[in-house]
Amino acid sequence: MKVLLVFAHPEPRSLNGALRDVAIRELEAQGHEVRVSDLYAMRWKSAVDHADFPSLTPDERLIPVAASKAAFDTGTLTEDVKVEIEKLLWADALILQFPLWWFTMPAILKGWVDRVFAYGFAYGVGEHSDRRWGDRYGEGTLAGKRAMLIVTAGGWEEHYAPRGVNGPIDDLLFPINHGILYYPGYDVLPPFVVFRVDRLDETGFEPLAEGLRERMRTIATTPPIPYRRQNAGDYLVPSMKLRPGLGDPGASGFALHVDDAGTTDRASAA
Amino acid sequence: MKVLLVFAHPEPRSLNGALRDVAIRELEAQGHEVRVSDLYAMRWKSAVDHADFPSLTPDERLIPVAASKAAFDTGTLTEDVKVEIEKLLWADALILQFPLWWFTMPAILKGWVDRVFAYGFAYGVGEHSDRRWGDRYGEGTLAGKRAMLIVTAGGWEEHYAPRGVNGPIDDLLFPINHGILYYPGYDVLPPFVVFRVDRLDETGFEPLAEGLRERMRTIATTPPIPYRRQNAGDYLVPSMKLRPGLGDPGASGFALHVDDAGTTDRASAA
Repeated sequence: MKVLLVFAHPEPRSLNGALRDVAIRELEAQGHEVRVSDLYAMRWKSAVDHADFPSLTPDERLIPVAASKAAFDTGTLTEDVKVEIEKLLWADALILQFPLWWFTMPAILKGWVDRVFAYGFAYGVGEHSDRRWGDRYGEGTLAGKRAMLIVTAGGWEEHYAPRGVNGPIDDLLFPINHGILYYPGYDVLPPFVVFRVDRLDETGFEPLAEGLRERMRTIATTPPIPYRRQNAGDYLVPSMKLRPGLGDPGASGFALHVDDAGTTDRASAA
Repeated sequence: MKVLLVFAHPEPRSLNGALRDVAIRELEAQGHEVRVSDLYAMRWKSAVDHADFPSLTPDERLIPVAASKAAFDTGTLTEDVKVEIEKLLWADALILQFPLWWFTMPAILKGWVDRVFAYGFAYGVGEHSDRRWGDRYGEGTLAGKRAMLIVTAGGWEEHYAPRGVNGPIDDLLFPINHGILYYPGYDVLPPFVVFRVDRLDETGFEPLAEGLRERMRTIATTPPIPYRRQNAGDYLVPSMKLRPGLGDPGASGFALHVDDAGTTDRASAA
């Protein structure tokens, strides 16, 4: 497989840097080809602004969605964004690696998403009709590819448990896994999350590294999170609400969009 | 009241710009004093990096949490960050205004949080003992102040409904409302969210503006979201799991941390 690893930590001599190297070595040992986007080393520009759209006249009002669409359609996105899009099209699997800062990704990685996930590429794709609402959530430009997160967190795992005060880690990562990765079509693998990293010592590192190696060895075969495909019948069109009767009757929130029972016909997704 | 509005849209001639001006005018008409941090106009630096900590030697390894703590303790945070912290201490109420990009805030605003919410200021505050786990989630440096979000979204409101495909808007905003604002102590008001903004025309604007004016008129009196206070008895220490018996037995996810039934003694929080 071809794997793109997007790395978002400011310090190469960090736990994140060490885990990144472990992941790359294991992927390569398995015969995979790896490319890395090291956002800090690249001095990645985070802010979507007027300079992203050279075809706008200097005084022209910036409407981000419209400008993104026009630039993608006409091939006038900036070079740094085009290079990242080319990498995403090249890769069979995408890994986003980052420390959890304020319960989500660091700004520099959000800026990579905001700028690279252009209209016409990652959203605004496909027909809107009475049967389907665009190619998204399981369909889209990146369908057939796999994605996963590697995340480090300072807090205790229990604080991120189903009843933990921070909220469940799967729910905290849902806006990324479902909203950013599943949206343009990726099959999203369960994340690799390390907790309490501030207390980690040398003896604690090796078991972690081995856990990560195992995930890298199985990157092509690990079953993805069974999110419900938007256009496979589970949702009403155009309200895009989950059909009555689907999901645990008492359930609410993000968990409704994971089809643990397998009610969607996944064979048709293959 | 003193109000700080942090604004994160690249185009002043946008719906966001118009709503910002409506909010400021109404707040001032009510006798409030308003300051604005217009992050794009300020060319806010988003990435936490080595340059944020001038007391590190050039080759010194950057450990973000430790560096943030040392810089806050010794007063060596960068000037731009110190100015924002001073504004937060000055303000009785904080408003974060932004377009929802990929289901959360734009990178430039995340970078404001990542850099301004320093260790010792917004986290790492208070004692850790068998009774309490730091001053956070309802306690902390910013306790007694109010905060709210003003958010614009391109999608339909139904897609963000309790069973909508994007996930419920309250859950999507939970990592911000609970994880970023409630964490350092703010009382968090329900957000003001506008949907389907790409389709908004002139006749649609005035009712929206009036809704926002009403929220600004009541900013001092609107009841906050009743998140559970961490150290008021609802959570076990040190696991910080919600006590058995609290919350709807069938419920899961973020909703557990909202105390709709009022089981926490809120009188003691006043």
